[in-house]
Amino acid sequence: MASYDYDLFVIGGGSGGVRAARVTAGLGKRVAIAEEFRYGGTCVIRGCVPKKLYVYASQFPEHFADAAGYGWTVPEASFDWRTLVANKEREISRLEGLYQHGVEKAGGEAFHSRAVLLDAHTVRIEAENRTVTADQILIATGGRPNPHAALPGHEHCIFSNEAFDLRELPKAIVIAGGGYIAVEFANIFHGLGVETTLVYRGKEILQRFDMDLRRMLHDTMAKKGIRILCHEHFTSIDKRPDGRLDAHLFGGEVVTADQVMLAIGRIPNTENLGLEAAGVELGKLGEIVVDKFSRTTVKNIWAIGDVTNRVQLTPVAIHEAMCFVDTAFRDKPTRPDHKTVPTAVFSQPEIGTVGLSEDEASTRFDDIEVYRAAFRPMRNTLAGRDEKMLVKLIVDTDTRLVLGAHVLGPDAGEMAQLLGISLKAGLTKDDFDNTMAVHPTAAEELVTMYTPSYRVRNGARDI
Amino acid sequence: MASYDYDLFVIGGGSGGVRAARVTAGLGKRVAIAEEFRYGGTCVIRGCVPKKLYVYASQFPEHFADAAGYGWTVPEASFDWRTLVANKEREISRLEGLYQHGVEKAGGEAFHSRAVLLDAHTVRIEAENRTVTADQILIATGGRPNPHAALPGHEHCIFSNEAFDLRELPKAIVIAGGGYIAVEFANIFHGLGVETTLVYRGKEILQRFDMDLRRMLHDTMAKKGIRILCHEHFTSIDKRPDGRLDAHLFGGEVVTADQVMLAIGRIPNTENLGLEAAGVELGKLGEIVVDKFSRTTVKNIWAIGDVTNRVQLTPVAIHEAMCFVDTAFRDKPTRPDHKTVPTAVFSQPEIGTVGLSEDEASTRFDDIEVYRAAFRPMRNTLAGRDEKMLVKLIVDTDTRLVLGAHVLGPDAGEMAQLLGISLKAGLTKDDFDNTMAVHPTAAEELVTMYTPSYRVRNGARDI
Repeated sequence: MASYDYDLFVIGGGSGGVRAARVTAGLGKRVAIAEEFRYGGTCVIRGCVPKKLYVYASQFPEHFADAAGYGWTVPEASFDWRTLVANKEREISRLEGLYQHGVEKAGGEAFHSRAVLLDAHTVRIEAENRTVTADQILIATGGRPNPHAALPGHEHCIFSNEAFDLRELPKAIVIAGGGYIAVEFANIFHGLGVETTLVYRGKEILQRFDMDLRRMLHDTMAKKGIRILCHEHFTSIDKRPDGRLDAHLFGGEVVTADQVMLAIGRIPNTENLGLEAAGVELGKLGEIVVDKFSRTTVKNIWAIGDVTNRVQLTPVAIHEAMCFVDTAFRDKPTRPDHKTVPTAVFSQPEIGTVGLSEDEASTRFDDIEVYRAAFRPMRNTLAGRDEKMLVKLIVDTDTRLVLGAHVLGPDAGEMAQLLGISLKAGLTKDDFDNTMAVHPTAAEELVTMYTPSYRVRNGARDI
Repeated sequence: MASYDYDLFVIGGGSGGVRAARVTAGLGKRVAIAEEFRYGGTCVIRGCVPKKLYVYASQFPEHFADAAGYGWTVPEASFDWRTLVANKEREISRLEGLYQHGVEKAGGEAFHSRAVLLDAHTVRIEAENRTVTADQILIATGGRPNPHAALPGHEHCIFSNEAFDLRELPKAIVIAGGGYIAVEFANIFHGLGVETTLVYRGKEILQRFDMDLRRMLHDTMAKKGIRILCHEHFTSIDKRPDGRLDAHLFGGEVVTADQVMLAIGRIPNTENLGLEAAGVELGKLGEIVVDKFSRTTVKNIWAIGDVTNRVQLTPVAIHEAMCFVDTAFRDKPTRPDHKTVPTAVFSQPEIGTVGLSEDEASTRFDDIEVYRAAFRPMRNTLAGRDEKMLVKLIVDTDTRLVLGAHVLGPDAGEMAQLLGISLKAGLTKDDFDNTMAVHPTAAEELVTMYTPSYRVRNGARDI
């Protein structure tokens, strides 16, 4: 083995890169990591963490309103956007520090710099104007919002990155997209009192989730006052003389707002990294092509996380990092497992889901049973809040395996996490039935649906 | 078979009795049920349901306080106890109607009356001053708070029943007991602004739960401002000239309060039911003795729920009801399964738990691993709230079976419900490890504790 400066050089200090660097350093290897922006990556700096903090912020008006039915008189509250932004900033800075120090504490070296490959073993650390060499290289540079450069006026738009740090809370916003980012931000802004319009090209928000949940979430958001336009998209964005923006829709309508946010997908960060110089092959969307062990087309170069465009979730990137360390440094080749990944959408109400949607299951299985319950969570009763919760289990009639579990309602994300254990382990509907209820909870509905709501045979519903 | 007026007569219209009556009527049997107070029983009328509504009510001040860190300025809110009581009353009346009508809709007959056995097949319906006969009889009369008649001044005290409907919210309350009822009410009253003292004879609140959770809940409650005195009990209660009450403690202290609540256990409702006349045997605590199929010592008389003093939980009573119907009317003898029952304490923070505590597990197993994480839930960060969450898994080192799962923190009850599926099905720690995290959630901690915090061999902790 040639003598390199490092055993491992990681490019990108997000969840995946930091985990790989920290754990490998913990094995006694010589490890460096470079991050050009802020340690923590999308998740910590402008994704999961600030998003969920803003979700909490945006839910308070509902708490205030719900309190009345419980005997509370709450005078009108006021909201200061800059306080939220500043407090969020303090918290993510704290986490940023933890991420960086975690690597350093384990014995790794952390650079604040862009890093570019010169060849398969040489990395240029731009901020220090020098090169280092490494035996193994891991690319974990993540992704960024699709800029939609083809849209006339796209330069007037913001993306999720900017949405967290706007100087002023807009009075009105139009958001393009129907994925979880668009939906979560629509709920956040609406909850904070912003007049919110969601414009989505597809037939229903949240493609690939269970259609029942998509529809019920859509209806609930609409009832709250979010305007949702499906089968619709922007043709151009104009800046008006008063500084506001006109979003021209394909159908002819013009929606005027203070901000227009584009959330129409994310693209991998693979430009100007020297990947071509090193011989790393990219896919059609610019993503790094990897094999089942996260190895690129160059033997000593690996890639994990969003830059590979597999499953774009923080825990998946972390899992890929752990598998990478096992494979590259522990002599225990391990493939990341991307099956039966539970996930949440922090919409309001939340979605939590694991396994197959009804539509997917009925395509793959000849005969499924659907267990479904829609009910008002207890908290909403005295609150006088009309919102319903939906829980749904998709079961293979033959084997009794639970193929999918879907929840729309408070704490759905927490529920998806724990349902994930049962589905990943291949439990059956009988295992659910054998479980005693915990009363009063919402989750007890998931273990007390004894009779199928309907059955789907050969794709046709059959009550 | 003799000709009886009914195939089944149920005494007691709580969760267990109503379920048995409704389902049996649904089988086409002639069914009657008698309830002397209100349909719905303890759970609906003065237990789980109003309790949880009051928990919600009592949590609003924390919501208001937490809002500041999220950018909200909330002027001081005021609370009206009578509004809460009235709104609670409306909701439980609605449920009460549903319970009674459920039986009637299924074809059963519902009496508002005390019912007393005259012999093994004859029931006297007191309010109608007549007798009816039945082939099978089910006793589901539940329990009530232990009146603690030996305590001088007990007549000045209230119990959980009365606590829901006090005419005025007390300024100060002293609660005796360390069980879940005492703990839940202490949190409710404290949350509503009442100066609250909890007096418990034992060494730590919530006997039989995991000691770690008991201690952390105790500390958290104390930090909120609830005064908790363990190893302490009342010697007498005196009424003062000003109408307030003096609770004299064994240690000599006198605590003055507007109300003194006793929550020192519950006793079965078996008096004046004619059980002796029918030949039904009672146990030492007055509970009805039943076999594994819920059959009493009289062949055609059965008993389920709290009156049997097995596991005093609504879902267990319902489960026993379903098993009873299978056994008595569907020719499918079925024993209720009381193993691995998940349960929650709606304290603040909540407890959710299933399976063995660390202490129980280390007594029964030679070698266990304990996985433990204490952390601040994300919502508490910007709120500036110090409260930590605790999650804990107890694992049999040999088989890797997860023996116990324990959660202290927000949504712990929902989590216990779904953890219950995994533990009931006998999943291993590997099944937990194989599950992808859902980020950011609190429950993800339960699937990302890869290294044991400590190990307990032959009862001794071994880091």
